[in-house]
Amino acid sequence: MKRIVLLVLAAGTAAAVLASTSPEVVRAEEPPASPIFGVKVPDGYHRWELIAPSQGPDELKGILGNETALKAYRDGKLPFPDGSTLVKLSWKREPLAGFDGDFVPGRATMVQVMVKDSKKYADTGGWGFGRFIDGKPADEAQHKACFACHSKNAQVKEQDFVFTRLAR
Amino acid sequence: MKRIVLLVLAAGTAAAVLASTSPEVVRAEEPPASPIFGVKVPDGYHRWELIAPSQGPDELKGILGNETALKAYRDGKLPFPDGSTLVKLSWKREPLAGFDGDFVPGRATMVQVMVKDSKKYADTGGWGFGRFIDGKPADEAQHKACFACHSKNAQVKEQDFVFTRLAR
Repeated sequence: MKRIVLLVLAAGTAAAVLASTSPEVVRAEEPPASPIFGVKVPDGYHRWELIAPSQGPDELKGILGNETALKAYRDGKLPFPDGSTLVKLSWKREPLAGFDGDFVPGRATMVQVMVKDSKKYADTGGWGFGRFIDGKPADEAQHKACFACHSKNAQVKEQDFVFTRLAR
Repeated sequence: MKRIVLLVLAAGTAAAVLASTSPEVVRAEEPPASPIFGVKVPDGYHRWELIAPSQGPDELKGILGNETALKAYRDGKLPFPDGSTLVKLSWKREPLAGFDGDFVPGRATMVQVMVKDSKKYADTGGWGFGRFIDGKPADEAQHKACFACHSKNAQVKEQDFVFTRLAR
């Protein structure tokens, strides 16, 4: 009986050791990916260059881009090359106390990501989408809506399905 | 007569060569400085990190900061250390066609700069100010208004005379 208990304990320890180094556990520590597209919030995006600020009905936004995207903007060359990545940060809009008509960012509402991979995302204009709320990807229904909206407006479609223009 | 003409031509050429390398000419090519403070638009500011977007009555803005300023924001340490520099970019707000309540940047209206130098700008909370319209500094009266506005609001004063808070 004692030997069996020890064997079970030993097997348990081995399983625990295996689990702590298994690919599954490593994957669990990685940032979560969006449904449908498998897009993640890119590392270090806060240091990316501002493409433009923008405003929604109740939000303030900042759209940032990586080097590949910014080069395409500056050169005025569309479509965006593979590897171009855009991040849109959104905050609730709050009035600035004492200044009529001025608004500043309040609570962060979401982070949205577009990644260009013309082969992988051929069905959606070459773009993969990710919408993250509190660091967690939104559901599949929301991700189905991304390209539908980015492709319905003729002007946006003309700019390789990207809303934001370089503000300089 | 011929000799005199040649001498005049030679003198003219020498003057032109001198002018093209003189300190005066080099200075003229440098970016212009603001009145009162002598603040210039810093090189390469477009690559600085976004602190926050914001909105005026008819404008959209993006406020960027250099490494020194961002470190102070992240560490939550005030006052900002000397060398902290903030750049506020402003654009006319334009409706995004087909999207009710959405606005995007139109024409760029101004670039505003704050530079921290606690000794040089001791009379204005340690900050030097610059307001640039089409790359040219605004007049002295506008620059006299900078600190007056940055120091009248208690909440802004508490944050070392800086309006913008780090939006994350």
